[in-house]
Amino acid sequence: MRLVPSAVTIAHELAKKIVRPGDTVVDATAGNGNDTIYLAQLVGPSGLVFSFDIQAEAILATRDKLVLANLESRVKLIQDGHENLDKYLSKPIKLIIFNLGYLPGGDKCIITKPATTLAALKKSLSFLESEGLVLFTVYTGHPGGQEEWESIQAYIGQLPKEQYDVVLCTYLNRNVHHPFTIMIQKLNNG
Amino acid sequence: MRLVPSAVTIAHELAKKIVRPGDTVVDATAGNGNDTIYLAQLVGPSGLVFSFDIQAEAILATRDKLVLANLESRVKLIQDGHENLDKYLSKPIKLIIFNLGYLPGGDKCIITKPATTLAALKKSLSFLESEGLVLFTVYTGHPGGQEEWESIQAYIGQLPKEQYDVVLCTYLNRNVHHPFTIMIQKLNNG
Repeated sequence: MRLVPSAVTIAHELAKKIVRPGDTVVDATAGNGNDTIYLAQLVGPSGLVFSFDIQAEAILATRDKLVLANLESRVKLIQDGHENLDKYLSKPIKLIIFNLGYLPGGDKCIITKPATTLAALKKSLSFLESEGLVLFTVYTGHPGGQEEWESIQAYIGQLPKEQYDVVLCTYLNRNVHHPFTIMIQKLNNG
Repeated sequence: MRLVPSAVTIAHELAKKIVRPGDTVVDATAGNGNDTIYLAQLVGPSGLVFSFDIQAEAILATRDKLVLANLESRVKLIQDGHENLDKYLSKPIKLIIFNLGYLPGGDKCIITKPATTLAALKKSLSFLESEGLVLFTVYTGHPGGQEEWESIQAYIGQLPKEQYDVVLCTYLNRNVHHPFTIMIQKLNNG
């Protein structure tokens, strides 16, 4: 068994350890819908996924995949920026997942950006239930990617260690711009 | 469930995913015996742990723990440097674990060192079976620790990605010298 073939599999493995049937979770970047599908399977028929994307193209692609997988009843698709997630959420959330950068196959000029990503992260932490996770797959290879990561890093690096475990997992023998994973777990005293 | 309370738990979780009853594994740094005990439990009564330490004090402490846990029949304790592990091993190994630095509670002047750690790592990779793991818990807070890590990093950073997954997991909101985990998995074509 290959333990960590990709950054995305690290995030999915961590999600699987925490998410239980009936949970409410968030895909902050629906993109091509893969994370949303994965989360919809994890939460089961009694759970709920809020799935955000600013691009209509991403929302449509995700809806198509959900319909094909017969999972659309578990997902609320929201075409809005994830920095506005507080407008839609009302209760504690078990997990919030971000896949940064641009929509694969889409317009590479439309990217996640430091100010909105950071705003969404801060709001995510405030909605997170105890032991819940925020997961990022971070890309630094596109213009603006490195700056976005640096702003996230500065913020999460100062989160109190008594309240959050903040862990980076990255490959050491791949391209310097290979995507990597960030896990933030809210602790019981968080 | 707190997913990653410490660097050592990351290594133990990874070990648990790979080691099966009957496997042969290596604790390259017996130290106070905790990893050896953990591995002896994972390999079961039909498995075998080779446990190395250069210090008699560590070998004795580990033996005491094994006897208490009634696990001594599963472990070969070897008082020798881990750079000599090829003198004792003859068949493919599923996992080799290193806990770098000094013996907790022992003489802080006796530390693992770049030349011998690197020699042991290279030999470890040559004994590793396909899909097997080398795991390091790395400490950089003691004199020589940072230099040791830099020599390991230079070596593992150039391992071919087609043959090895080399992954670093570290905390971003703890002391800069907090221990961290390195996982090297040999791939099927490794």
